[in-house]
Amino acid sequence: MTSDRIPLAALERGTPFADRHIGPRPAELVRILDTVGVGSLDELAARAIPAAIREDGLRLDLPDPATETEALAELRALAESNRSLAPMIGLGYYGTVTPPVIRRNVLESPAWYTAYTPYQPEISQGRLEALINFQTMVAELVGLPTANASMLDEATAAAEAMTLLRRGGRSTSNRFVVDADTFPQTLAVIATRAEPLGIDLVVADLTDGLPDGEFFGVLLSYPGASGAVVDHEPLIAEAKSRGAKVAVTADLLALTLLRPPGEIGADVVVGTTQRFGVPMGFGGPHAGYMAVAAGLERQLPGRLVGVSTDADGNLAYRLALQTREQHIRREKATSNICTAQVLLAVVASMYAVYHGPEGLKGIATRVHRMAAVLAGGLRAGDVEVVHERFFDTVTARVPGRAADVVARARELEVNLRLVDADHVGIAAGETTTIAHLRAVWAAFGLDAEGYDVTALDTATGDAVPASLVRTSAYLTHPVFTAHRSETALMRYLRALSDKDVALDRSMIPLGSCTMKLNATAEMEPITWPGFAELHPFAPVADAPGMLRVIHDLEDWLATVTGYDAVSIQPNAGSQGEFAGLLAIRAYHRSQGHGERDVCLIPSSAHGTNAASAVMAGMRVVVVKCDDRGNIDMAHLRSTVEAHRDDLAAIMITYPSTHGVYEDTVREVCGLVHDAGGQVYVDGANLNALIGLARYGKFGSDVSHLNLHKTFCIPHGGGGPGVGPIGVRAHLAPFLPNHPLQPTAGPETGVGPISAAPWGSASILPISWAYVRMMGPEGLKRATMTAVAAANYVARRLDEHFPVLYTGEGGFVAHECILDLRPMTKATGITVDDVAKRLADYGIHAPTMSFPVAGTLMVEPTESEDLAELDRFCAAMISIKSEVDKVAAGVWPKDDNPLVNAPHTAACIAAKWEHVYTREEAAFPTGSSAGKVWVPVRRIDGAKGDRNLVCSCPPLDAYA
Amino acid sequence: MTSDRIPLAALERGTPFADRHIGPRPAELVRILDTVGVGSLDELAARAIPAAIREDGLRLDLPDPATETEALAELRALAESNRSLAPMIGLGYYGTVTPPVIRRNVLESPAWYTAYTPYQPEISQGRLEALINFQTMVAELVGLPTANASMLDEATAAAEAMTLLRRGGRSTSNRFVVDADTFPQTLAVIATRAEPLGIDLVVADLTDGLPDGEFFGVLLSYPGASGAVVDHEPLIAEAKSRGAKVAVTADLLALTLLRPPGEIGADVVVGTTQRFGVPMGFGGPHAGYMAVAAGLERQLPGRLVGVSTDADGNLAYRLALQTREQHIRREKATSNICTAQVLLAVVASMYAVYHGPEGLKGIATRVHRMAAVLAGGLRAGDVEVVHERFFDTVTARVPGRAADVVARARELEVNLRLVDADHVGIAAGETTTIAHLRAVWAAFGLDAEGYDVTALDTATGDAVPASLVRTSAYLTHPVFTAHRSETALMRYLRALSDKDVALDRSMIPLGSCTMKLNATAEMEPITWPGFAELHPFAPVADAPGMLRVIHDLEDWLATVTGYDAVSIQPNAGSQGEFAGLLAIRAYHRSQGHGERDVCLIPSSAHGTNAASAVMAGMRVVVVKCDDRGNIDMAHLRSTVEAHRDDLAAIMITYPSTHGVYEDTVREVCGLVHDAGGQVYVDGANLNALIGLARYGKFGSDVSHLNLHKTFCIPHGGGGPGVGPIGVRAHLAPFLPNHPLQPTAGPETGVGPISAAPWGSASILPISWAYVRMMGPEGLKRATMTAVAAANYVARRLDEHFPVLYTGEGGFVAHECILDLRPMTKATGITVDDVAKRLADYGIHAPTMSFPVAGTLMVEPTESEDLAELDRFCAAMISIKSEVDKVAAGVWPKDDNPLVNAPHTAACIAAKWEHVYTREEAAFPTGSSAGKVWVPVRRIDGAKGDRNLVCSCPPLDAYA
Repeated sequence: MTSDRIPLAALERGTPFADRHIGPRPAELVRILDTVGVGSLDELAARAIPAAIREDGLRLDLPDPATETEALAELRALAESNRSLAPMIGLGYYGTVTPPVIRRNVLESPAWYTAYTPYQPEISQGRLEALINFQTMVAELVGLPTANASMLDEATAAAEAMTLLRRGGRSTSNRFVVDADTFPQTLAVIATRAEPLGIDLVVADLTDGLPDGEFFGVLLSYPGASGAVVDHEPLIAEAKSRGAKVAVTADLLALTLLRPPGEIGADVVVGTTQRFGVPMGFGGPHAGYMAVAAGLERQLPGRLVGVSTDADGNLAYRLALQTREQHIRREKATSNICTAQVLLAVVASMYAVYHGPEGLKGIATRVHRMAAVLAGGLRAGDVEVVHERFFDTVTARVPGRAADVVARARELEVNLRLVDADHVGIAAGETTTIAHLRAVWAAFGLDAEGYDVTALDTATGDAVPASLVRTSAYLTHPVFTAHRSETALMRYLRALSDKDVALDRSMIPLGSCTMKLNATAEMEPITWPGFAELHPFAPVADAPGMLRVIHDLEDWLATVTGYDAVSIQPNAGSQGEFAGLLAIRAYHRSQGHGERDVCLIPSSAHGTNAASAVMAGMRVVVVKCDDRGNIDMAHLRSTVEAHRDDLAAIMITYPSTHGVYEDTVREVCGLVHDAGGQVYVDGANLNALIGLARYGKFGSDVSHLNLHKTFCIPHGGGGPGVGPIGVRAHLAPFLPNHPLQPTAGPETGVGPISAAPWGSASILPISWAYVRMMGPEGLKRATMTAVAAANYVARRLDEHFPVLYTGEGGFVAHECILDLRPMTKATGITVDDVAKRLADYGIHAPTMSFPVAGTLMVEPTESEDLAELDRFCAAMISIKSEVDKVAAGVWPKDDNPLVNAPHTAACIAAKWEHVYTREEAAFPTGSSAGKVWVPVRRIDGAKGDRNLVCSCPPLDAYA
Repeated sequence: MTSDRIPLAALERGTPFADRHIGPRPAELVRILDTVGVGSLDELAARAIPAAIREDGLRLDLPDPATETEALAELRALAESNRSLAPMIGLGYYGTVTPPVIRRNVLESPAWYTAYTPYQPEISQGRLEALINFQTMVAELVGLPTANASMLDEATAAAEAMTLLRRGGRSTSNRFVVDADTFPQTLAVIATRAEPLGIDLVVADLTDGLPDGEFFGVLLSYPGASGAVVDHEPLIAEAKSRGAKVAVTADLLALTLLRPPGEIGADVVVGTTQRFGVPMGFGGPHAGYMAVAAGLERQLPGRLVGVSTDADGNLAYRLALQTREQHIRREKATSNICTAQVLLAVVASMYAVYHGPEGLKGIATRVHRMAAVLAGGLRAGDVEVVHERFFDTVTARVPGRAADVVARARELEVNLRLVDADHVGIAAGETTTIAHLRAVWAAFGLDAEGYDVTALDTATGDAVPASLVRTSAYLTHPVFTAHRSETALMRYLRALSDKDVALDRSMIPLGSCTMKLNATAEMEPITWPGFAELHPFAPVADAPGMLRVIHDLEDWLATVTGYDAVSIQPNAGSQGEFAGLLAIRAYHRSQGHGERDVCLIPSSAHGTNAASAVMAGMRVVVVKCDDRGNIDMAHLRSTVEAHRDDLAAIMITYPSTHGVYEDTVREVCGLVHDAGGQVYVDGANLNALIGLARYGKFGSDVSHLNLHKTFCIPHGGGGPGVGPIGVRAHLAPFLPNHPLQPTAGPETGVGPISAAPWGSASILPISWAYVRMMGPEGLKRATMTAVAAANYVARRLDEHFPVLYTGEGGFVAHECILDLRPMTKATGITVDDVAKRLADYGIHAPTMSFPVAGTLMVEPTESEDLAELDRFCAAMISIKSEVDKVAAGVWPKDDNPLVNAPHTAACIAAKWEHVYTREEAAFPTGSSAGKVWVPVRRIDGAKGDRNLVCSCPPLDAYA
């Protein structure tokens, strides 16, 4: 042992986390590199990445890597430094109890959190069912027929409602009226959104009716930010009679007691489901919601789960109306929302499943009675309560004393809302106790201990207007009564997740989505109370640990990307794009160049890019690509020249959406800068660059990153995402900020683009832990391993499915596009057939027909070991041999395992009339070991879209 | 809302936990009671439970129920009150890092922790594979061919080794020699065990060789308690030449560096696998281990996983040599160990899978070098280090100063071992850092900060004797290299658990095993660092929160059972039985009645009872049962009369093992007491009594309880168990105690029966939370709901499978025995066929052929809702209709879905030559929804026992 002794200090470090995050072992990497035809990762970097941008010898200025134990200890100390006061601030964020069975079996279960967006519905039936429960829950509670599968948050949902009303109505007005009694962050996000679109926002006190003049829409709050519950029926009727449409922000819990907006004429209802069991988490993530009246379904932004049938006629779920998705509509898109908050929507839906209608009503009653008794106590002490009618929030008038009351409440461990110098807001939630009421009374200087709460309770009536008491039923579907014991819910959650293929069962080699490991040590802290129980508008003094995570992460992301400043507020990539483009817009204006409004976008771009540009008030001009998928430089030059005077920006992705390191990127940046434009590099593919090149150093001015791609935040079945933006110094004054947390952004910022000051703060420990445990060398190694893996797959599959694009040296970046079009032309076997057939092999399909129709884009990531890479390659090669049998006429074009894929166990056991065998269908690898069965056969998408059903089907539909 | 207003204080309580723990909703309960033929749970109690013992109106003196949130907050405060100093005490417990991926996906995964003992191997292949990995790991590390699937702890394993050597050898001596350098708790447990068996224990310093005279066995330590590593080869050779067999306690981590005991002649090797990733947890649970030389396999106590093949010839795992199990051997049993520590064995095995041989060696090297450098630093400061050769533990000689050094170390947050006034023990572990070494040096008064550790490291050689450096390979099977990335291990764990049916997929209606909900709120605290990171021999001042949990629980269990004192030390029911009988024995002796050594046991008793009595030095006399399964009172009277002078005790189970409330129990107790005997009531079936009757009040003197049955500790796939005992006051002086923690038991106690002072302390928060959240009324309601559910099943199934035994009123207790013997006689379809067929229905079989051959014993528990009860009943009735088809000749006796059950997907897809259809085979309920496939067909048990293979088969064996 002595001769090859390792120093004690090295032994003390143990196994680096990077060795667990990165899949291939050293010997496997050698085989991968052999196949790729390079001798080392460094050689691969040198040959694949253009010298023009490559920073050889770069050593990112990040902390040395911590072990899992160390990182967890640091995060634990940070979590414990936070101080969770009783959260009675309200404004859309409330104390809630996450049922432990849901915490463990959803939020802490890889089967749920590592899943991808259910684009492959046959292997996503579990989360699709959970989402249709969510849609049913929302639709029934708000009293409208159709709800989508969640929105990013309440404020962006309200902004989306505004634009929906504009395009969905017949008014030609540009005016939008918003109830002044709306949450301030919602008002601010709407303002940020309205301005670039030229919408004239009218914030008005509506107690005396609607303002004069024409307007296309109205947004009402129910209850209001003040807590007031007003019967909006007359206002809605008036607005409609004047040609406008009406949206309402509504508290879902309140709607178990209150007449729902859908019953009083609302066209659109939006809000949040946070208080349905989702921890506040200093702002998010939570699932926002949106529901619409009949006729507006097809205008809904975001995702919508619908019911259809499979090839055997059995009921099956799928994403409906997918043609609305931005990557398909591109510049026709009207919203850039393509991320939902699926994981949180699942939690909220399961909260409703577990409590059921009477359970939810019980919680609402508790909350309401706490508020009512609180108000009763205040009045008994001669404190003026501003509103007679409320659900959970009381506004107290204490002239000149409000700050003092709030300060005294903090001494008693309660956070209240300082409305202004004269008013205090107090909101009750599921975690509010009688002890909290006493603390509040004491903060107002009342004799809290002297109060007889039982007597007060008896003496205090409800504060809900009689005319608004809900009489209609909700959550009547059996799913909301069948799983009431913990055992029953645990089994339901297990059974649902067993229908799905997530990262815990298969690689998910999705080009452009980087489905890498979401390590346990990264995930554990997010459910710790120290991070989970912070109100986003609590004083920053309560959250030193949380803010340390935020600021560390902002610094580290700036380091990684070479930018000068980062904002983590955007809670999805789409929001990051919008924020980045707003920064560019604001910058041009600050320079006196408000006329610059053209945004160049290559034809290969993700559709979200164009949608974001439109939202930011820009005109999209498309730049052509050559037949290798690269930007057509000649066309770019002429286009830039044509727009010298009005060029605002170019928006490119690097490496490109084609998975290629384009050689010309520095030149592109120079051209645009020379013409006075700014460069936006979409950071979706950052995983191919870390430690090797930096956007901010090769010419980009701003990028958004996707923490849910490159930085290990799990995709959660289609959200949460986190889309921070990095900018160079000249754009830093134009980052997002927030009206309720002045330190969350620059004073000169563009306003908030998310409801919460620091976006989805509660999941940032995931990315923090990733960077902390990988260290600079680990991150670089991850990048190069991902590139090596993509090139390995490209090399192995090229002879079977030609690789469409490569860079100068014949290398791809971190993903590769397999061209199936020749195969399809020859045999009729489509990309879809191959994707569904992969499900029979137990493998999640790559990205289909993006960015090029008729292709598959494969991104293996660094986390897959050689065995899994080989399992995928073997499956693809085997599928190709199946296609060859079709080509050779061995199997008919209309009866073969590809067009009939996927195969359920039921169809295998049933009467068999195919030319191929059951075993060929079910066990194409020749082994039944570890077989993952699909629960349904191929789903008929068109049928579901024609006959749109987006809530739980009756039980007999399953027969 | 006003009219039916619920008071605020009631609303504040929210949904009681009992409503989540108990399965049936109120409306369901009405239907259950209707079927049973009673109007209420109270009526059922009045009619089913004999008036002689029923305590009407009993209100257990327990705290009012807490909500989940409250209980978790209380436990969090208790956890945070504990103080985890660096654990350098050693003695078999060391700091270790549980890889987060294992913590989350095993310890915190219901799929693993809610599983039952793998008696149904076809639906347990996942955990059986994990256990065969464990056996392989142990066997290869210790250098012996066969290891079992874990032992309760190192000390009991050593005691079992002693008895194994006695029965496995040819010596007629009663002397057993134990190395004085053995862990003190191991010595003490061996002493407790040896005395009743008449074994003459010789504890000897073996540095100068073996003592004179004959002895049947020797136990050596490797390394010793002092840390010394001695080459035992000459001693072993000498012992063997003198006709003795040799056991060695060995540290598994050390064996990655040291020549294994199997290579130097050991017959048996025992130890613990705690430091393989299992938190110390103030003492447990951890998996002990035992491995044996060729020829001793069939003498192994505990469980052994073996390889066999299924009906299609595919490789499959199963429990081997099950005929050794105590419930089959009864009074012929030589060990009462029937619980393993499966969950912890899985953790330890996965730790080895994740680290692999070179990773384990790296950790061992780190540990060893820390100890070596520590010793080097001590010597450099002129502190005498007693042993030249050691692995991880250093004994320092500091005449008169030892207590002072230990105290100073505590000020520096390090716990050392106070060996005696002159010696300090210091042990390194995986969590030991250089900073800890500096703290230790400082505690010795050395200039710790002045030390150049790098120089010390270079100057300090290894301390392992050259002759003992390991040269043989270990962990060479591919499983120990294939899952090195976190992604790979996560998928392996998921894939294994997907092969198994645990409580998260099906009810497990096991008579006598009470597979009730293991609620998340009960489970969450056990992996918190505040409970997990305590050394069992740390001063009690470090563990106020842990001790509060322990003492609360002891008090509450005493209240529930009506006893005066409780000891939670026994870490399995079997250990509780042994402890209880030892207390009786000691009591008789204290009364001058050492001659009382007869233990009466009814013929229906669990085999473990008899084995425990034998271990406690008693003679077993069997009392007959009548044809209703009750004790034959006439025979009891005559037997008691015959043994008036030597009667020690009667050992009964209540309700009986037949699932019946026997009317005569009070009379039985009286008869025995009158004859001078003590009454031991086995508490296995306590779930049928809580809140209704108390053992200590109707005549029993002592009972063991099973926290893993009645009090929600999960079965973990076959362990951990916890088996505390309750006693009346006169037996309290004879409870277990512990040499290293004086407060853990009475000074007059019988000695330790487990290695750790408070047994499996770290999982006691589970039972604590259960009692805390249920409250007295909730516990009683759980009991009566369980009884109602059992009677419901009995009523519904009686016409299909006659219920064998009922009490006076025609009611069963909490379980019922279904008699399949008439069916078997008529058709040849056996209990086994029905059990395997249930797997096709996705349901875990009830207990088979216990306590009556040819029957099934069904215990639904209170946690199953009506839907699940009905699913089980429907499956059983459907199976009966299948049997009827065989009886009618529709299906041949040798080809029907029963004898061919279970059916794999592979056999469904293959060529089909049965008279029944594939759908009848695979989807007997008519639906494929939620189908859980078995991974193997029926396993050939006899073949596996004939050709015993108990380690990982080579990969080509799977072909």
